Amino acid sequence: MKNIIIASTSTVHGSGYLEYILDELKTFFKNADSILFIPYARPGGISHDEYTNTVKTAFAIINKTVNGIHEFENPVEAVANAQAIFTGGGNTFVLTDQLYRNNLIEAVQKAVKNGTPYLGTSAGSNICGLTIRTTNDMPIVYPPSFNALALVPFNLNPHYLDPDNNSKHMGETRETRIKEFHGFNPQPVVGLREGSWLHVNGDSIVLKGSLTARIFEKGKTPYEVDPETELNSLK
Amino acid sequence: MKNIIIASTSTVHGSGYLEYILDELKTFFKNADSILFIPYARPGGISHDEYTNTVKTAFAIINKTVNGIHEFENPVEAVANAQAIFTGGGNTFVLTDQLYRNNLIEAVQKAVKNGTPYLGTSAGSNICGLTIRTTNDMPIVYPPSFNALALVPFNLNPHYLDPDNNSKHMGETRETRIKEFHGFNPQPVVGLREGSWLHVNGDSIVLKGSLTARIFEKGKTPYEVDPETELNSLK
Repeated sequence: MKNIIIASTSTVHGSGYLEYILDELKTFFKNADSILFIPYARPGGISHDEYTNTVKTAFAIINKTVNGIHEFENPVEAVANAQAIFTGGGNTFVLTDQLYRNNLIEAVQKAVKNGTPYLGTSAGSNICGLTIRTTNDMPIVYPPSFNALALVPFNLNPHYLDPDNNSKHMGETRETRIKEFHGFNPQPVVGLREGSWLHVNGDSIVLKGSLTARIFEKGKTPYEVDPETELNSLK
Repeated sequence: MKNIIIASTSTVHGSGYLEYILDELKTFFKNADSILFIPYARPGGISHDEYTNTVKTAFAIINKTVNGIHEFENPVEAVANAQAIFTGGGNTFVLTDQLYRNNLIEAVQKAVKNGTPYLGTSAGSNICGLTIRTTNDMPIVYPPSFNALALVPFNLNPHYLDPDNNSKHMGETRETRIKEFHGFNPQPVVGLREGSWLHVNGDSIVLKGSLTARIFEKGKTPYEVDPETELNSLK
């Protein structure tokens, strides 16, 4: 049975890495002593080791050990044997490219379907959707496909930002970008604000945290849903 | 001899479409009565006809006629025969995808090398660089390549935005994104603020408008350059 947390961000303003969600993760990872970390998204271009060390420090607080997938000779086996998986944020294109290069798309899908708990934040959440076509990231590498893990039947937009009505900047708002996405793609998009997450438990998909989320369905006016809303009919 | 304007935006805040740059365009397009418009980037998902009509209205003020490339049976021939070319803004992935699908990459490169004046704004400027890997746009379609027209030996970041030090949003700043780009790509990036443009004239590449531009070179601290700076050694 699928057991997934799809979080908008690893860090909320003024708080430490994963701090806002650590109580939740204690419960979520209750049956795992160790977590396999996928550091491929490399925020700020840092090394896999540096990134993994940040994650080790955060999870030590709830007594979990962490190993980076880059430490294993065979990453596909590492995923298959993992007690739990965490994919961190950074650049979604770099992450997706590395998942394909290491033959990990099917491996992660299989593990999650078999019940291995999966936590994603930011880029690690983007890849839970059908495609990465609603990422906010810069396309700094060219992955072999934009198709993602498809763990949920829609797309995600983490770090969702409301339009700033005082801005004089002429770049597109997030809402305009997602509207353009629907000119070429049929699936719904969940705009997850920082501090929000989706908890997927079997067929149930529930919005968590204290904020509403913004739902974009093709041909419909975007709308807000409250925390604890069940989103399993969204497809 | 190459004759190109690479503009950050079509429109500055509080002003009409192309209004801020229309005097410049009068000179730039002085030898052309008609302009071939490439509307493929489709801002806001509008149709090619709607987009072309906006451009027709703007250029009527300086007595230029405009035809959309989608009105021609053979777009490659349309480019070869054009007196001048304008590629408008919108989504850079959609634009790039359509350029490849219509076999226009080489056609536009050849026309520009032969001296056909080329104006790009926003997405139409992004594609003047070596690749589209520094676009701000959402990857709503998967183009066959991120390689672009390579009319200049660097990448562009139109609509360049300075970090907002008051923001509580945890998404990456533009500067961080470009730093991550340099983890995987060697070429410089020119961050063009709205209202700025580059004028390419043969081997000369000069920053125009009233604002400074921000230059990002791999391994160097980013720096500002003043209007009228010659950028022909940037590569």
